[in-house]
Amino acid sequence: MNDRDTTLQQLKERMADFVRERDWEQYHTPKNLSMSIAIEAAELMEHFQWLTVEASKRLPVEALADIGEELADIVIYSLSLANTLQLDLAETVSRKMDKNIRKYPSEKVRGKAHKYTWYQENE
Amino acid sequence: MNDRDTTLQQLKERMADFVRERDWEQYHTPKNLSMSIAIEAAELMEHFQWLTVEASKRLPVEALADIGEELADIVIYSLSLANTLQLDLAETVSRKMDKNIRKYPSEKVRGKAHKYTWYQENE
Amino acid sequence: MNDRDTTLQQLKERMADFVRERDWEQYHTPKNLSMSIAIEAAELMEHFQWLTVEASKRLPVEALADIGEELADIVIYSLSLANTLQLDLAETVSRKMDKNIRKYPSEKVRGKAHKYTWYQENE
Amino acid sequence: MNDRDTTLQQLKERMADFVRERDWEQYHTPKNLSMSIAIEAAELMEHFQWLTVEASKRLPVEALADIGEELADIVIYSLSLANTLQLDLAETVSRKMDKNIRKYPSEKVRGKAHKYTWYQENE
Repeated sequence: MNDRDTTLQQLKERMADFVRERDWEQYHTPKNLSMSIAIEAAELMEHFQWLTVEASKRLPVEALADIGEELADIVIYSLSLANTLQLDLAETVSRKMDKNIRKYPSEKVRGKAHKYTWYQENE
Repeated sequence: MNDRDTTLQQLKERMADFVRERDWEQYHTPKNLSMSIAIEAAELMEHFQWLTVEASKRLPVEALADIGEELADIVIYSLSLANTLQLDLAETVSRKMDKNIRKYPSEKVRGKAHKYTWYQENE
Repeated sequence: MNDRDTTLQQLKERMADFVRERDWEQYHTPKNLSMSIAIEAAELMEHFQWLTVEASKRLPVEALADIGEELADIVIYSLSLANTLQLDLAETVSRKMDKNIRKYPSEKVRGKAHKYTWYQENE
Repeated sequence: MNDRDTTLQQLKERMADFVRERDWEQYHTPKNLSMSIAIEAAELMEHFQWLTVEASKRLPVEALADIGEELADIVIYSLSLANTLQLDLAETVSRKMDKNIRKYPSEKVRGKAHKYTWYQENE
């Protein structure tokens, strides 16, 4: 599997099979899955906790493999939540991206990292 | 865009364009993005904080739209991290799923939610 | 040490000593400590991830010791952040409690778990 | 209230009163409170998300007040969890500090930020 040939639907189905074969739908509730994503996000953060922002850009190869696995866990639970909520993930993500494009017009925010409310308050 | 026709590559490219047009690569470092994912995961959790696990399965329609947006934010930052780390996300997720399949054989874990270390200690 | 005889100042000083003796002030920056607290919070959550809300009230004794340690880690990093920011923690907490008392008048919210914005919108 | 004169017990009792007067013990279960702490930790992180580690040390005064409130929320929910679990927080924290002192001997870790497992593997 690779990014060029794999659709969201294929990943969602693999995850749905994994959960169904283990009879884990009973645990994969929205509340529990939101915790799972947050837990995996923290495991990802742990790799960067004591690094400067700059150092986090030059990661040793062996760290990169571990970091990839943590990111995979976040995506895996996100797929399962999309399955549970019967959400079309590509559509949901695409719409949110459209919203972000409107919220952060590139000519206004280029090179700046303020939250969008800052732009509303400082026009 | 929908799950059936959209590849991971397409979503990653849309996100890369969004970041590049805003000159935000300087902020989208691994350390910062790991925080972003955790922050969005917490915003997702906020919807379920005071609900029972059961109640989280019967969400009102208007809550579902907000929840979808929070999940989208998690995926969006995950795509950006994959871009920054030059990770093939489908491959990374697929390998982690294979690992989970071996770690949690369905005949052993069916209907049970223990962590895999529990199975090692209780053979 | 116990809750009845221990002041916040005493805990803050023990933590300041621990950090200073290791020359760790350079790592205990606000950004890093905010990540540390979030990471420890996730380790705490991990104990409850697959439990129902009800089951989380009847914890086995051995789990309780582990859970206490995770909670301790959260408090420890919170003390260190208060040291770094030179915040009086008791005063800050006490003021926030006063604010919460005004925000959530007991006669209005008794037995209900809505966010305070809900009460503003539904008067 | 200030750090020098305030005991953990006093803060715990103020929090217990707040929860009891609102009949919120039913929501302040271990599972829910672990989520609450993680959510507040994320709100704290949000202030530092796009800052360099260095910049997070030079915070504007108005940011400091907001950051103090987020830290207060973390402590408030930690107090409530200690109440729910009937944990002596000072004792639990003090024991964990003792453990950390043994785990990270100052002569060995001075000025270094590796995780303790690193020291075990690199003796």
